[in-house]
Amino acid sequence: MSASEIIIPKPTDVNRIQDEHWRLRASRVLPNGMYGHIQPHHTPANYPQFFGRSAGARVWDVDGNEYVDMLCAWGPMILGYGHQEVEATYQQELKNRDLAYGASPRVVELAERFVELNDGADWAIFGKNGGDATTLALTIARAATGKKIILKAGPSYHGATPWFTPVMSGITPEDRANIVEFEYNDKESFNQAVVAAGDNFAGIIITPHRHDTYTDQIPVDLAFAQHVRHVCDARKAVLILDDVRAGFRTSLAGSWAPIGIRPDMSTFSKCIANGHALSALTGIDSLREAASSIYAVGSFWYASGAMAAGLTTLRILEESNGIQTMTERGNQLVKGLREQAASYGINVVVSGPPTMPFVRFEDGKEMEHAFIWCEEALRRGAYVHPWHNWFLSTAHTKEDIDFVLSATDCAFRHLASRI
Amino acid sequence: MSASEIIIPKPTDVNRIQDEHWRLRASRVLPNGMYGHIQPHHTPANYPQFFGRSAGARVWDVDGNEYVDMLCAWGPMILGYGHQEVEATYQQELKNRDLAYGASPRVVELAERFVELNDGADWAIFGKNGGDATTLALTIARAATGKKIILKAGPSYHGATPWFTPVMSGITPEDRANIVEFEYNDKESFNQAVVAAGDNFAGIIITPHRHDTYTDQIPVDLAFAQHVRHVCDARKAVLILDDVRAGFRTSLAGSWAPIGIRPDMSTFSKCIANGHALSALTGIDSLREAASSIYAVGSFWYASGAMAAGLTTLRILEESNGIQTMTERGNQLVKGLREQAASYGINVVVSGPPTMPFVRFEDGKEMEHAFIWCEEALRRGAYVHPWHNWFLSTAHTKEDIDFVLSATDCAFRHLASRI
Repeated sequence: MSASEIIIPKPTDVNRIQDEHWRLRASRVLPNGMYGHIQPHHTPANYPQFFGRSAGARVWDVDGNEYVDMLCAWGPMILGYGHQEVEATYQQELKNRDLAYGASPRVVELAERFVELNDGADWAIFGKNGGDATTLALTIARAATGKKIILKAGPSYHGATPWFTPVMSGITPEDRANIVEFEYNDKESFNQAVVAAGDNFAGIIITPHRHDTYTDQIPVDLAFAQHVRHVCDARKAVLILDDVRAGFRTSLAGSWAPIGIRPDMSTFSKCIANGHALSALTGIDSLREAASSIYAVGSFWYASGAMAAGLTTLRILEESNGIQTMTERGNQLVKGLREQAASYGINVVVSGPPTMPFVRFEDGKEMEHAFIWCEEALRRGAYVHPWHNWFLSTAHTKEDIDFVLSATDCAFRHLASRI
Repeated sequence: MSASEIIIPKPTDVNRIQDEHWRLRASRVLPNGMYGHIQPHHTPANYPQFFGRSAGARVWDVDGNEYVDMLCAWGPMILGYGHQEVEATYQQELKNRDLAYGASPRVVELAERFVELNDGADWAIFGKNGGDATTLALTIARAATGKKIILKAGPSYHGATPWFTPVMSGITPEDRANIVEFEYNDKESFNQAVVAAGDNFAGIIITPHRHDTYTDQIPVDLAFAQHVRHVCDARKAVLILDDVRAGFRTSLAGSWAPIGIRPDMSTFSKCIANGHALSALTGIDSLREAASSIYAVGSFWYASGAMAAGLTTLRILEESNGIQTMTERGNQLVKGLREQAASYGINVVVSGPPTMPFVRFEDGKEMEHAFIWCEEALRRGAYVHPWHNWFLSTAHTKEDIDFVLSATDCAFRHLASRI
């Protein structure tokens, strides 16, 4: 089936023979059958677990079923899977070298690129996970201030590290001893956290908008962001913008550049190398000495293939005006979803930037309805998600979004018939 | 210059024009000019910082100077840079898919492979950094026991994480609150640490032999290892073997398999995918539930390219009897180094498994002499290191080692003339 030829999608005759085979084998050698957010019990029952192919905006599960992918690998894919130019530079770098004893010139070029693009940044350090970048940022904030307490917004996610993970199994109170939480966009709550931090207020880490799972995304309140910046300045605390998830989907200059709030450090990962493992931390000149004083390294942190891919990804995003393209497609999707929901009398909230929308059902049984709806959309060839925001890429065409909307229309009709 | 044609190496007419160019640019956009262990002040002054090419056992700096690489990218390279079969499977996997929404069958195959190879292992989880694996291991030990304290040997390195990093800038006392240190191989010191942990003794993390930087490597004492295993069993604490650095360079079954001590969990990274970013944690069945209860994920932790490369790397290592090959070359190197030192009347200690030897000078000014010696070896085309153990790969031929020994012979003569 080629999705682009079939505007009204038919339910796929779902075949899960291969998927069942791999699930069974996985159940023996992987805890829970899989680690992390794609553990089988986290997604609707008919969702495939294993994938065999990806290209452009499409993925195929191991049984050959094709989907338009609205998850973009949970964000890393931004120009389309297997993007020709990105992969060509990646391959060329690998052919010459990837790892050797030292670094390649790509690390310098990529740091220069981040400094050039990112509002206020003067230096960069690269890692592999988003959590590498956020952890380094906390360490540098503490080194710079000689203080310990970092403020974060309640359930905001900043990486699978002991001080941020949402699951407390195996986590000690000491892992969180120097974290004080506040309510996103709530000035009073933030002020209370600052008071609680007292003389030990080292800094704050915050996402550019609220994009916690399961809940509506909420833009940052400008007055709140200005207040945070002002208090950090007055208290000589460090403002860290965690752009790991949202970065490069609303602005090339950092997600707070459009509102004129300049962070002291920013963290990036996910899409910056179009799927190749890479994260980045950028910072201002006054933090350079602290950044020089800490220990920042990993066996693969100089690997230049992903850096070459990053250079090409960022160049293409800029030259092709990729954010505008994704925004147009996202607006098309969001408008369509809202109209469909209204036409079936189903209450949904579609929130977030159009390039990373989230659909939440409001009918009491939120997750139950979301699962039913997602399962039907999936049957029709649209890969959407019930509790995590989706992502747009520049590879999603107008026709892809039309196709996804045809699938979600069927899903809304199906859900309406069941409630 | 082709190193294999020139048995008596001549000093290269060192050209550092490109290297200086990139260092200057790096100094503007990277803290300290570079992050991590390859910061300029950590290596002898004439060492190149930037590399342009790698192939087999050779690397070329950005100015085109060629070296036989005895660092193997600090361990990750084990079959030679750009190994044809590994890269072919890697490319094939990337062509099909690397990242998508979910996992590929490669994660199952690789977990099965680790379970098959690794003594006692029943399950596996994969990450990107060695520190991902060690952090997960601590978390699982705590989840399984409901206790907090982890024992570790004094300066042993287990990753660039706040609870292990050797540099304390930006690290808080709380980051180390649940770590108790003991002296490697010292039963009395270990017992004291167990007493200090008291009712909160969750587990121990230990390297298979002592391979701390700057100091002689020391094999684990069998009676000590047996004692640790016995105490962990008696106290229901978890024994974690950190095989990130040493793994697959002395045994395919885990580095304590030859001495018959079975850990409860093992961590691997570095060489397991011949340079592609990958780490692994394996564990026994009784820890499966705890491993299922914790949060273990990263954006790139399902990336299947590195897993495909890992499958091929481990297969070739086994089929080609790679450890034996590396051991023979390592013995050739170690024997040669000791004979040369003796012939020039210079006291050195060559320690560690022959596949990861370390050379330490004993003449009072250890580092000064090591730097002089390394600089001269480098001028002659042998890339060696003054304070970190070296690594062998299966790509190092007898002739490569002869060449390296010719370079080190010149270096010993040079050093002898200066002291």
